[in-house]
Amino acid sequence: MGNDSSNQMWGGRFSAGPDAIMEAINASIGFDRRMAAQDIAGSRAHAAMLAATGILSDSDAEAIRKGLLTVLSEIEGGTFQFSTALEDIHMNVEARLKDLIGEPAGRLHTGRSRNDQVATDFKLWVRDQIDAALQGLEALIRALLVQAGAGADWVMPGFTHLQTAQPVTWGHHMMAYVEMFGRDLGRFRDARARMNESPLGAAALAGTSFPIDRHMTATELGFDRPAANSLDAVSDRDFALEFLAAASICAMHLSRFAEELVIWSSAQFRFVTLSDRFSTGSSIMPQKKNPDAAELIRAKIGRIFGANVALMTVMKGLPLAYSKDMQEDKEQVFDAADNLMLALAAMEGMVRDMSANRDSLAVAAGSGFSTATDLADWLVRVLNMPFRDAHHVTGTLVALAEKKGCDLPDLTLDDMQSVHSAITGDVFGVLGVENSVASRTSYGGTAPDQVRAQIARWKEVLG
Amino acid sequence: MGNDSSNQMWGGRFSAGPDAIMEAINASIGFDRRMAAQDIAGSRAHAAMLAATGILSDSDAEAIRKGLLTVLSEIEGGTFQFSTALEDIHMNVEARLKDLIGEPAGRLHTGRSRNDQVATDFKLWVRDQIDAALQGLEALIRALLVQAGAGADWVMPGFTHLQTAQPVTWGHHMMAYVEMFGRDLGRFRDARARMNESPLGAAALAGTSFPIDRHMTATELGFDRPAANSLDAVSDRDFALEFLAAASICAMHLSRFAEELVIWSSAQFRFVTLSDRFSTGSSIMPQKKNPDAAELIRAKIGRIFGANVALMTVMKGLPLAYSKDMQEDKEQVFDAADNLMLALAAMEGMVRDMSANRDSLAVAAGSGFSTATDLADWLVRVLNMPFRDAHHVTGTLVALAEKKGCDLPDLTLDDMQSVHSAITGDVFGVLGVENSVASRTSYGGTAPDQVRAQIARWKEVLG
Amino acid sequence: MGNDSSNQMWGGRFSAGPDAIMEAINASIGFDRRMAAQDIAGSRAHAAMLAATGILSDSDAEAIRKGLLTVLSEIEGGTFQFSTALEDIHMNVEARLKDLIGEPAGRLHTGRSRNDQVATDFKLWVRDQIDAALQGLEALIRALLVQAGAGADWVMPGFTHLQTAQPVTWGHHMMAYVEMFGRDLGRFRDARARMNESPLGAAALAGTSFPIDRHMTATELGFDRPAANSLDAVSDRDFALEFLAAASICAMHLSRFAEELVIWSSAQFRFVTLSDRFSTGSSIMPQKKNPDAAELIRAKIGRIFGANVALMTVMKGLPLAYSKDMQEDKEQVFDAADNLMLALAAMEGMVRDMSANRDSLAVAAGSGFSTATDLADWLVRVLNMPFRDAHHVTGTLVALAEKKGCDLPDLTLDDMQSVHSAITGDVFGVLGVENSVASRTSYGGTAPDQVRAQIARWKEVLG
Amino acid sequence: MGNDSSNQMWGGRFSAGPDAIMEAINASIGFDRRMAAQDIAGSRAHAAMLAATGILSDSDAEAIRKGLLTVLSEIEGGTFQFSTALEDIHMNVEARLKDLIGEPAGRLHTGRSRNDQVATDFKLWVRDQIDAALQGLEALIRALLVQAGAGADWVMPGFTHLQTAQPVTWGHHMMAYVEMFGRDLGRFRDARARMNESPLGAAALAGTSFPIDRHMTATELGFDRPAANSLDAVSDRDFALEFLAAASICAMHLSRFAEELVIWSSAQFRFVTLSDRFSTGSSIMPQKKNPDAAELIRAKIGRIFGANVALMTVMKGLPLAYSKDMQEDKEQVFDAADNLMLALAAMEGMVRDMSANRDSLAVAAGSGFSTATDLADWLVRVLNMPFRDAHHVTGTLVALAEKKGCDLPDLTLDDMQSVHSAITGDVFGVLGVENSVASRTSYGGTAPDQVRAQIARWKEVLG
Repeated sequence: MGNDSSNQMWGGRFSAGPDAIMEAINASIGFDRRMAAQDIAGSRAHAAMLAATGILSDSDAEAIRKGLLTVLSEIEGGTFQFSTALEDIHMNVEARLKDLIGEPAGRLHTGRSRNDQVATDFKLWVRDQIDAALQGLEALIRALLVQAGAGADWVMPGFTHLQTAQPVTWGHHMMAYVEMFGRDLGRFRDARARMNESPLGAAALAGTSFPIDRHMTATELGFDRPAANSLDAVSDRDFALEFLAAASICAMHLSRFAEELVIWSSAQFRFVTLSDRFSTGSSIMPQKKNPDAAELIRAKIGRIFGANVALMTVMKGLPLAYSKDMQEDKEQVFDAADNLMLALAAMEGMVRDMSANRDSLAVAAGSGFSTATDLADWLVRVLNMPFRDAHHVTGTLVALAEKKGCDLPDLTLDDMQSVHSAITGDVFGVLGVENSVASRTSYGGTAPDQVRAQIARWKEVLG
Repeated sequence: MGNDSSNQMWGGRFSAGPDAIMEAINASIGFDRRMAAQDIAGSRAHAAMLAATGILSDSDAEAIRKGLLTVLSEIEGGTFQFSTALEDIHMNVEARLKDLIGEPAGRLHTGRSRNDQVATDFKLWVRDQIDAALQGLEALIRALLVQAGAGADWVMPGFTHLQTAQPVTWGHHMMAYVEMFGRDLGRFRDARARMNESPLGAAALAGTSFPIDRHMTATELGFDRPAANSLDAVSDRDFALEFLAAASICAMHLSRFAEELVIWSSAQFRFVTLSDRFSTGSSIMPQKKNPDAAELIRAKIGRIFGANVALMTVMKGLPLAYSKDMQEDKEQVFDAADNLMLALAAMEGMVRDMSANRDSLAVAAGSGFSTATDLADWLVRVLNMPFRDAHHVTGTLVALAEKKGCDLPDLTLDDMQSVHSAITGDVFGVLGVENSVASRTSYGGTAPDQVRAQIARWKEVLG
Repeated sequence: MGNDSSNQMWGGRFSAGPDAIMEAINASIGFDRRMAAQDIAGSRAHAAMLAATGILSDSDAEAIRKGLLTVLSEIEGGTFQFSTALEDIHMNVEARLKDLIGEPAGRLHTGRSRNDQVATDFKLWVRDQIDAALQGLEALIRALLVQAGAGADWVMPGFTHLQTAQPVTWGHHMMAYVEMFGRDLGRFRDARARMNESPLGAAALAGTSFPIDRHMTATELGFDRPAANSLDAVSDRDFALEFLAAASICAMHLSRFAEELVIWSSAQFRFVTLSDRFSTGSSIMPQKKNPDAAELIRAKIGRIFGANVALMTVMKGLPLAYSKDMQEDKEQVFDAADNLMLALAAMEGMVRDMSANRDSLAVAAGSGFSTATDLADWLVRVLNMPFRDAHHVTGTLVALAEKKGCDLPDLTLDDMQSVHSAITGDVFGVLGVENSVASRTSYGGTAPDQVRAQIARWKEVLG
Repeated sequence: MGNDSSNQMWGGRFSAGPDAIMEAINASIGFDRRMAAQDIAGSRAHAAMLAATGILSDSDAEAIRKGLLTVLSEIEGGTFQFSTALEDIHMNVEARLKDLIGEPAGRLHTGRSRNDQVATDFKLWVRDQIDAALQGLEALIRALLVQAGAGADWVMPGFTHLQTAQPVTWGHHMMAYVEMFGRDLGRFRDARARMNESPLGAAALAGTSFPIDRHMTATELGFDRPAANSLDAVSDRDFALEFLAAASICAMHLSRFAEELVIWSSAQFRFVTLSDRFSTGSSIMPQKKNPDAAELIRAKIGRIFGANVALMTVMKGLPLAYSKDMQEDKEQVFDAADNLMLALAAMEGMVRDMSANRDSLAVAAGSGFSTATDLADWLVRVLNMPFRDAHHVTGTLVALAEKKGCDLPDLTLDDMQSVHSAITGDVFGVLGVENSVASRTSYGGTAPDQVRAQIARWKEVLG
């Protein structure tokens, strides 16, 4: 089994022997360099605190803080030489700092360890992503509000089981997604508030005997308070898991909307036209416009929720405090965050650019006896029939219309009365899709005024 | 392929033909009967509102509300005859109501549909589970506080990589879990607040033309407000997913603690003795005490997170509004909730009953040069050595102790000074595990006073 | 937090105290009774072997074997009294056996333990399910072959991105699923062959000193051989995981087909009509036919793959040999198996009953310039144009047709030659959907003859 | 919400507007370049076939095949300029080919499309990974056989519930993993055989009208046959999912072994000493040796199974044939494959290097009355007691030994007979761990000879 080429591959991969394998599995600098800015911010805050508490001289602290800025500029400028032998971002930064400022660099690590340092860096990174997600969601909601405002009274079919059920408005449908993404905002905000405790100063796992001031570094780094238990502070990855859980639900919402856009773009539906920018064409079939962006957004729930599964699996059954297993946390969150932001941006762009095909929507809204429920409700409301009886009468009338090859509003009053003699001409006032949607004025209903009220409410919420 | 017995099985299962298959796959009464109380509460609130808004006569409403109480008592009393032909709990209840009160029963369904009804029922059910989880978590935290209070100054090894790193206290370790379960409290509370919007009155998907008062039913059912978009209200299952996500993280915490209890119960560790009530013995090896409850708790994350995966997968890519796929939501949540509550109760019981083996903990705490970090910190603090240099000196001293076959506190001052001449006798004040833990007075550190302060804080929080 | 009712609920659940909690979490008889037949078959084989090897007297063995049949008939007859105090199916059966035959019952457990017993029972159960899945898949494939045979030359649109790409045939589309379900057959067969090793006689974990004959029991129970390592035999759950993995991929295939059926049933597509038996109607909208069964099948991947996640999570990081965590294996597999069989049966029924709307398919197949590729291929084949150039010419012709409001076959030869002068009247032979599909005669292509060849091959494969 | 820095981040990410977002979400060249060798191999086979069937001139085919080798050498040499504007590896290669050889390059794509091309490339890539996994597994099994051979008769505790149950041998424990990894071999081999059908020539989805020879390209590329349905060929990703499922189960096995290594390396167990190469030390605690590699291996199941979840989620509910969602398949498989190979190599290295602490194992094996079962079995075998009665007698003797503070072999014959008078001195022959393991001679049992027989069998299997 195995041919020469794969033998080589295997050999090529691991020919350098156990040391190379260990370096490959152990080093994190290949990915944790993305936290360089957070690492340096944390170290600068730590140095300032060490000076303020007298653990470090002011001059040493100043040298450290300046040196770290230099390191940061080297990293941002792309001139920094990362070393795999130095394993991770923390050691890479500290080693370079020592090159730059010498002996004081060795004093920076007083009263902390890599365990609390990496927890701090990673929390800061995740917090930034939460802020980015909040921005992306708000932008998407604003784009939906524009669509909803334009089509607050455009009728379209409301589906259940992908079968026409009752007419709704385009604006109402857009606002359903505003509610979903609005809940996503809430989840990310709650996650941010809960995670916003500083691990810095928890040290390896037990705290430290140095008279450090954890409240000071917490404040400096924008945390609400220091984490209250040092063991927990270094072994907690709830913040990453809660971010992934919120991102997964958000990605699920995106997948639903994307699915609708794909279906609505089909030749059979033609409910929307997506812009060329978010579609791809075919050199051979110019009329063909593939909803690639929508499909890719639909798929993103896979990798985002996959990341959630991955990290949850890693954390299962880990004894306290730090275990190396936890090093597997970052790549999952990085990938999920990148893809969530990309999906939000692409969806926002698509929503901004897309056009609803108002005529197709209206035609589809009126098909399939979609106002049968309105008729039944009229029978209940005006004739005081029990709901279940009204259903029966309506069914008979729909069957009659089907037999005559017409829709409900096209039946004559005689037709109506042949089924139930008490029906009056007033009934025609509730048939027809425009009448139908206008009548649904219950709170949160599809009536255009209700839709507009919700748009106004959301505009106020967003400010 | 297939032998007779499995042929029979297949045949036996589905011999009744397509109709039996459809009934088997379609009916939900087998599981949604668990929501009977919620269904009836929702219907009673709906009936009261229909009367208050003049849609229903007071007498009809009263007949309905009384009849529903009768139905509830039949169900709770076990005399209710559930019918699979009636598919679900809603139709079962309504059919029985009609038996009991006749024609007015047919008026109950005015201004609502099964789509908003099932969403309401399920939300109420999930909300009850959140309340149960909050209670279970609080009880568990209280049990942990008792353990922590008793052993606030008992020393034990603090592990990283399951290797002894630094001594900590039993109380500190217990309090790490208090922090974790405390965050779980927060997640469940946030989920409860976010989900607490009433779907009732969203009707099939578009709202209704009846002049219903959704705020009234929302208030009656303990919701904070009605859901603001009827399409979203019937197609939203975020509340179930967020419950499952919070339950999964909580189950992850339980799995970590359970893993520790299993390891700590081994003959090699002997850190704790679990009570007989949460262990199983062997008829042949009376000394053997298997930590069955801990193992089962450790495993619960599987099915709870599996339920999260299941429902997330179901919801992926579902177009609005209601699709029958969503009927798969309940069994997942039921099973996850049942198992979470059971795991919390079992863990609480185990924590209450377990005894820490204080001597074993102390012996283990002192092994493995666990105070080497304290020595290094002393060198930094007193001799003002850079941290990295202090590490080097400490390493040399540990090697010396290892060579002499003793621990660090057993070295003589001469030994110490042979490695670094500036070391004074004061250094012995920081060696020894008691000294070590006492010195870690940074906020959230393992010093007994810090631990006691956190216990006090949590007692106040819980009230 | 928490109101009276949920307080009661919590209390009600666990009021009986720790013992009730332990029983609730520990006992498996609530679900493992489903393995009663397998348990008894295993015990009967074991007893026969104990007699054959002289460990047990023939008369004792005979008493045991007869007694076990009595127990089985009691269980199958519904008269057996299951006891939770006896924890599991093994102890329930053995206790009843002792009631029935007295002292010899105590000799049955010689040379085995519950660890190998439960592994044997569960493997037999899973093996039966594999056989059932194979039958279900074959039945479904046969139903698809009937559909494919009837419509081997019915044209329909072939989609990519849910956009019309090229015409294909109904038979070809059906046969794509035959290939998928055919691979599922292979996966289940491979899983069956791999798992078919007997754990019986591995005893607790180390084997036994009794001169048992594991090959004999293996043969008796239809296993290919005894498992070769007793530690592995009791701690292995690969067979369950591989069943779940195969079931998950199968459920994924079902979800894809179900999705198509839902879309094809929409008013916008009208590609198929599902039978009333697998749809649900609406009392108010008689024309409405909801594809409930298809939606439910689409959703089944959730719980089946969720079960896979659940058990994989349970097994992660479990030390050898048996841990109680593994008791969580059965409910996951039971639920997944039940739902897979149900989904297969429902899909088979739907496929048997459904009607393709041949006219709708044909109309859709011809829309959207679906034969543009055929035109391009003709240019390459006949005029020897490079493929990329041929694409360009075709694009120009499609644009011309679009401008003229006609389809490609409706262009005149002059139109054609205005774009590329070398085009001849022969080109019309490849335009038109019938011509298109007939031309795709490459192996596995959509040409009716190719489709029929594949149908014939599959009929032969199935026998 | 959101501060300046994250505002910038969001802006920075997507400031280039919709086009940049679309490129970022749509282009795959960032990752699919890893399939360059496979893409070129596929194109070369296709060109040869086009010539053999007369679709292409021999000279064009030759130019293409040579040009492709040049492209390959440029890519392998690192001089190739990848372009994101060209989206994917296929277009990048073809564009460069056109640069190199001009017009004939445009003829390469005859009779195929990107849909079958990418399926072919990806299958070839996955097949190579299966071969690599097979090699890695074989290497690991060989390392385990060495360990097993060395310690075929070293006694150690056999655990259930992490409690000592019965003594086993080191070799037996190692061989349990050989069985597990042996099943992994089987799963990968079955997956390889099942997937080994060529998609090439399925074209966009319907096959082609060119007289291509799909069997020829299949053979050239090492496939067993062409895939039999063109729709299925381009929309099938079973091969990736089955690879991920097999990899996940394998990673689960690795996680179990890694967990044992972590526990066995603890100061409390000291069962094994891992080599320095696969551990990390601490500059301050030289005696500390963290089992980092084992922990990281334990964690790998997270990302590997996470990838399985991700791709399964992506495929759920996708209509035929190709959808852009499927582009999300590669990164998941790439990451899972890389990490599986790394984990296998690291585990192989660790197993090669590790030393069992034979004395610690023996001491632990003898503790905890681990031969109580042997005593019970002796009572059954020699005194013909029913198993359940023998258990009772044994329990009494264990309690007596516990009371006397000794182990079972240390009881006197008088002690024995005080509990059951028929016990003879022969009983001491089965007590003691050496006797115990030697007696477990049932097939697959822990007796050294049984272990050696299995080692020999496996050596023969591997050749």
